[in-house]
Amino acid sequence: MIILSEGANIELISIGNELLIGKILNTNAHWLAKRVTSLGLSVRRITVVGDDLDEISSAIREAIQRRPAFIITTGGLGPTFDDKTLEGVARAIGRGLKENKEALEMIKKKYEQYVAEGRMKKLELTPYRVKMATLPEGSKPLPNPVGTAPGVLVEYEGVTLIMLPGVPEEMMAIFDESVVPLLRKVAGDITFYEASLDIRGIPESDLAPLIEQVMHENPYVYIKSHPKISEKTHHIELHFSTACRSQSEARQRIESAIIKITALISERGGRIQPARI
Amino acid sequence: MIILSEGANIELISIGNELLIGKILNTNAHWLAKRVTSLGLSVRRITVVGDDLDEISSAIREAIQRRPAFIITTGGLGPTFDDKTLEGVARAIGRGLKENKEALEMIKKKYEQYVAEGRMKKLELTPYRVKMATLPEGSKPLPNPVGTAPGVLVEYEGVTLIMLPGVPEEMMAIFDESVVPLLRKVAGDITFYEASLDIRGIPESDLAPLIEQVMHENPYVYIKSHPKISEKTHHIELHFSTACRSQSEARQRIESAIIKITALISERGGRIQPARI
Repeated sequence: MIILSEGANIELISIGNELLIGKILNTNAHWLAKRVTSLGLSVRRITVVGDDLDEISSAIREAIQRRPAFIITTGGLGPTFDDKTLEGVARAIGRGLKENKEALEMIKKKYEQYVAEGRMKKLELTPYRVKMATLPEGSKPLPNPVGTAPGVLVEYEGVTLIMLPGVPEEMMAIFDESVVPLLRKVAGDITFYEASLDIRGIPESDLAPLIEQVMHENPYVYIKSHPKISEKTHHIELHFSTACRSQSEARQRIESAIIKITALISERGGRIQPARI
Repeated sequence: MIILSEGANIELISIGNELLIGKILNTNAHWLAKRVTSLGLSVRRITVVGDDLDEISSAIREAIQRRPAFIITTGGLGPTFDDKTLEGVARAIGRGLKENKEALEMIKKKYEQYVAEGRMKKLELTPYRVKMATLPEGSKPLPNPVGTAPGVLVEYEGVTLIMLPGVPEEMMAIFDESVVPLLRKVAGDITFYEASLDIRGIPESDLAPLIEQVMHENPYVYIKSHPKISEKTHHIELHFSTACRSQSEARQRIESAIIKITALISERGGRIQPARI
């Protein structure tokens, strides 16, 4: 587990019944995992729970106990009754929920803008709208450049909890604007590098000892085999990755592993070509 | 949480670094969640961990403590060094790993078939191949109609653990052949029903009280709003679901909720049309 332990740890928690009933694919966790990894940090665990207060608060409490640098949640920040993320966080960290002036100001401005643009008749700060500005005590709202509900950041016992909306465009916009700078500080200048080879003509069970040998000789490169369709077709993607401060060193690490495994596979009659990532 | 608590609970655990680095989308969990829900059972939690023995065994131990009827894992059953699922399960339930005769026979037959078809030169039961037949004590192998590694079933303290391969075609084939009959027994004749409406011209924060009212009057229907793009566009999918023994009753429940909310939304100037699920 060389790759996954070099950078600071992050846990992702995706909140929403729609994920548990298979209504939608968890593209938010996929996008965040890719971005976090490319910034040189490691996602250690992804947890998906429904819109249930007990489930949300237990998942957050359990994640805090594993002491990641960051916990990033998506979903459950909106105005409806089943948007329960902030209540779940407050319960998990033993704080109260409180109307946050800065957040309320952000929301008010959004609605004033909608009224000015003629998309809403009049601004009324109903309880459902104020709910989006009711945050765990000690929180900081993160501006939402796309939608209404702000993101939320709160520190607890050395863990930074960041709550983002479930609407992908809003989640991505807040992440890029407010979260990336925080992650960069922690990641330093580590970057994640990867390459893939397409292997044919050798079953995965015969590739297994070769991977072990090459990883033993190249301890900073993680090699993982991904059989395509099934082992019997003998079509395998070999994925190489490393996390490293220097781009040239990363490239050299991966090249060295690729040269070695290519020789071993060719000796055994396998065919190799570069694969798209 | 009416819908998600009627059927027996299931937890899904997806295993593989490729999910944590955002290399692939978790389509396996999505497919399984959809199938399990349509069979009338409830997915309570989805956990994604890497190819790490400690992480796998903790995730399984924690899931067991929540007492679901089933835990279904995907990934980590193959021949390579980082296929660690069975070792993780054995550790989580405090059992040893043992060569399973029935599993070895299944694997042997697969390789004999590959040799007969000329896709492999000779059958050799290397340690890497025998590994796929080395199961937690008390396990039952589940035939793999597509690939080599069998699925695995083991009972522990009233929880049925089912381990499936990560290659989607293999996972789906074993699920359909060996797992569906087990789930049906537990589910009885409950089925999951759903419908969606496409709402325009009303912001989610104004929809929120209407949803609460209709759910209060229709306690067996779960209604969830899914804003499209962002709240400011006022384009929302409203999703209705219920789990029920009788199809006609399910339809009647959902229709009643739709009729009521349609009236309330129209009164407030919103526009409604049926949406595709």
